[in-house]
Amino acid sequence: MKKIYSEIITIGDEILYGHILDSNAQWLSLELDKLGLTTKKRITIGDNEEIILKTLKESIINNHLIIITGGLGPTNDDLTKKCLTKFFKSKLVLNKEALEEIKNLFQSRNLELTKKNKSQAMLPECAKKITNPNGTAPGMWFEKNSKIIISLPGVPYEMKEIVKKYCLKMIHSYFNPQVIFHKTIKTIGIGESWLADMIRNWEKNIKKNIKLAYLPSIGQVKLRLTATGKDKIVLKKEINEEIEKVLPGITKYVYGYDNEKIEECVAKLLIKNKKTIAIAESCSGGLLSHKLTSISGSSNYFVGGIISYSDSIKNNELKISKTILKKHGAVSEEVVKNMAKNIRIKFQSSIGVASSGIAGPTGGTKEKPVGTIWIAYSDSKGTIAKKLKFSKNRSLNIQLTSLSLLNMIRIYLIKRS
Amino acid sequence: MKKIYSEIITIGDEILYGHILDSNAQWLSLELDKLGLTTKKRITIGDNEEIILKTLKESIINNHLIIITGGLGPTNDDLTKKCLTKFFKSKLVLNKEALEEIKNLFQSRNLELTKKNKSQAMLPECAKKITNPNGTAPGMWFEKNSKIIISLPGVPYEMKEIVKKYCLKMIHSYFNPQVIFHKTIKTIGIGESWLADMIRNWEKNIKKNIKLAYLPSIGQVKLRLTATGKDKIVLKKEINEEIEKVLPGITKYVYGYDNEKIEECVAKLLIKNKKTIAIAESCSGGLLSHKLTSISGSSNYFVGGIISYSDSIKNNELKISKTILKKHGAVSEEVVKNMAKNIRIKFQSSIGVASSGIAGPTGGTKEKPVGTIWIAYSDSKGTIAKKLKFSKNRSLNIQLTSLSLLNMIRIYLIKRS
Repeated sequence: MKKIYSEIITIGDEILYGHILDSNAQWLSLELDKLGLTTKKRITIGDNEEIILKTLKESIINNHLIIITGGLGPTNDDLTKKCLTKFFKSKLVLNKEALEEIKNLFQSRNLELTKKNKSQAMLPECAKKITNPNGTAPGMWFEKNSKIIISLPGVPYEMKEIVKKYCLKMIHSYFNPQVIFHKTIKTIGIGESWLADMIRNWEKNIKKNIKLAYLPSIGQVKLRLTATGKDKIVLKKEINEEIEKVLPGITKYVYGYDNEKIEECVAKLLIKNKKTIAIAESCSGGLLSHKLTSISGSSNYFVGGIISYSDSIKNNELKISKTILKKHGAVSEEVVKNMAKNIRIKFQSSIGVASSGIAGPTGGTKEKPVGTIWIAYSDSKGTIAKKLKFSKNRSLNIQLTSLSLLNMIRIYLIKRS
Repeated sequence: MKKIYSEIITIGDEILYGHILDSNAQWLSLELDKLGLTTKKRITIGDNEEIILKTLKESIINNHLIIITGGLGPTNDDLTKKCLTKFFKSKLVLNKEALEEIKNLFQSRNLELTKKNKSQAMLPECAKKITNPNGTAPGMWFEKNSKIIISLPGVPYEMKEIVKKYCLKMIHSYFNPQVIFHKTIKTIGIGESWLADMIRNWEKNIKKNIKLAYLPSIGQVKLRLTATGKDKIVLKKEINEEIEKVLPGITKYVYGYDNEKIEECVAKLLIKNKKTIAIAESCSGGLLSHKLTSISGSSNYFVGGIISYSDSIKNNELKISKTILKKHGAVSEEVVKNMAKNIRIKFQSSIGVASSGIAGPTGGTKEKPVGTIWIAYSDSKGTIAKKLKFSKNRSLNIQLTSLSLLNMIRIYLIKRS
């Protein structure tokens, strides 16, 4: 089975200037990979006719499929449609179906159609229109010498809906891609080099058609195994056999696979063990609650939380006595333990957790420099606290605090269940 | 003054597969732009020797500066250093200074040096080492025919520190870039087409050396003005004059400029008006509190919050009577108004805000479908509620709820001060 190569082109000055993050290209890579296509390259270029045309010319040589996002807006800085019309030596004509769809969209939102929006129904004659259910810029499908170019709007939720609803099926039935299978082991609480040393022997003996990659991110390391071949079921079996071999040595660091987030792992453990949780956050400021409620069905385990930013809230709501606050300071083992225990009792949950620390960049002292953070876990069997030492970076400290708390919940849910 | 062109190359299968988001390229684009360099293209390729070498060969032709990130890790899937050694026909030699730095880093973390980490001190002979204060893979600076190639590790907080501490100065003193000046007007509460219609006449008459771009994102539209020329002070003046002209027509939608976030605008307004805030979150689940506490100095205005996920917390903590909850349901004008008012009184803050809605994807009814959300604002002058209708997407609904609340706080802080 031959490989199908794809290239993703992102068009927009705003991306090149760095003013916005290109999350579209990542999402598209992921979807194409799932289909079995190989993205060989991604390119980002500006709103410049000459460069767009040159890139199209070069990209079509080495690839079977090109997906372009961006530059389809109703405003004057958008050039993609113009360039594609030129590239295919076509001309712009009114697409009645597209106009109808745009009209319906505006009607459903109770809005009046502007002239600019109407112009979005003008498409190159050689293009097949792809419906955009969430916006006014239709997608376009071009075919030339058995190669496909797809042009999509840059607004992520418009682009994704078009791809999910129409493009993936169209791509799959046009090409007949070979099979790639990935599985990613997600670890927390261990650094990349230590993990690499720990699994060195296993790594040396991995099957030839399986590739291993270490993917470090904040507080976590992912191990991605990628197998290529003909049969998805065989590849899946081969990868699972390799995972069986490596798992015993690293099991306490592994919280999940593939796209599972640590908060999803914790949510599953809470539901499985029929536990509920309440959260008292100081330095993490609501991020842990946000993470645990970002999951659909979170009302099954998440009772509620208190963000006790000021000492008076710690005192009034969480019953931390003024004496303790004065003696030990808000960032202390005593306070964080009481926060976790008292939120559990007050909110009548099985588990209470808490954070209190100096997120920075200001507020540090010699004894408690910025990055000093206490976290705690409390259930009917007792309350445990842990001191963390992070960086001077506020955002990083907030992120790492909520990650560490999630890992703490995971560990004690397993230990005490 | 001639333009200095740069290209950013991201190396890593994990990026092409779409398994991680390439935030490095965005950040680098932004920094290069600030220096006055023009990023003409960004390319992402995989861990593949042939493709890396081919890309280097092509990229060096059209650019003055190439920055490469990724592929410098201690593990076997990392190929960038090997490729650069080949590209420059150099050889790997031990860089004693680099070894010393790696040793010091491990000592400061109380960790033992592994063999893999030691190998990271082997650098191409022709490269200038750039210290990596946060990690074990040094940056590298190569020079050939007045063109520069910089290779940096892919871990964002290592890469950024190297660039901020060393590379920017090195790049600036090597090239003598022309000046680009941007200013971005940030709007909320109006769509792209309406905004475009509203400012059409102004757009037609913008100065020739100034370019306008519309950048829509979730719930917001940014207007970016970009001026190119010789003198930063002149460009700044020209852009500010254009902004003066357009501002009167759109002022109620404008909350800030450039990188200012809506939560920063709200924080500034709270501090300026000497107001404090407390938050009762139901469907937004902590995200609004997180946003308002992500800003350094937030303890000056943020008193605290309650995440009243369950009805019992709404009843016990926020004193919403069971009768009201039963009669109107938790997602109702009555409940959300009481939540905002009661959190304000309980936490003794000047302002109280609240959210209650059906984030989805489940939990909707015919009368209250998924995406039905109530928000409220309360101060000593009274309590206002607003009904929102969003999508079926949980994450989007949570994001839009917290954005709408931030905008509501902004509007009433201005109106009532």
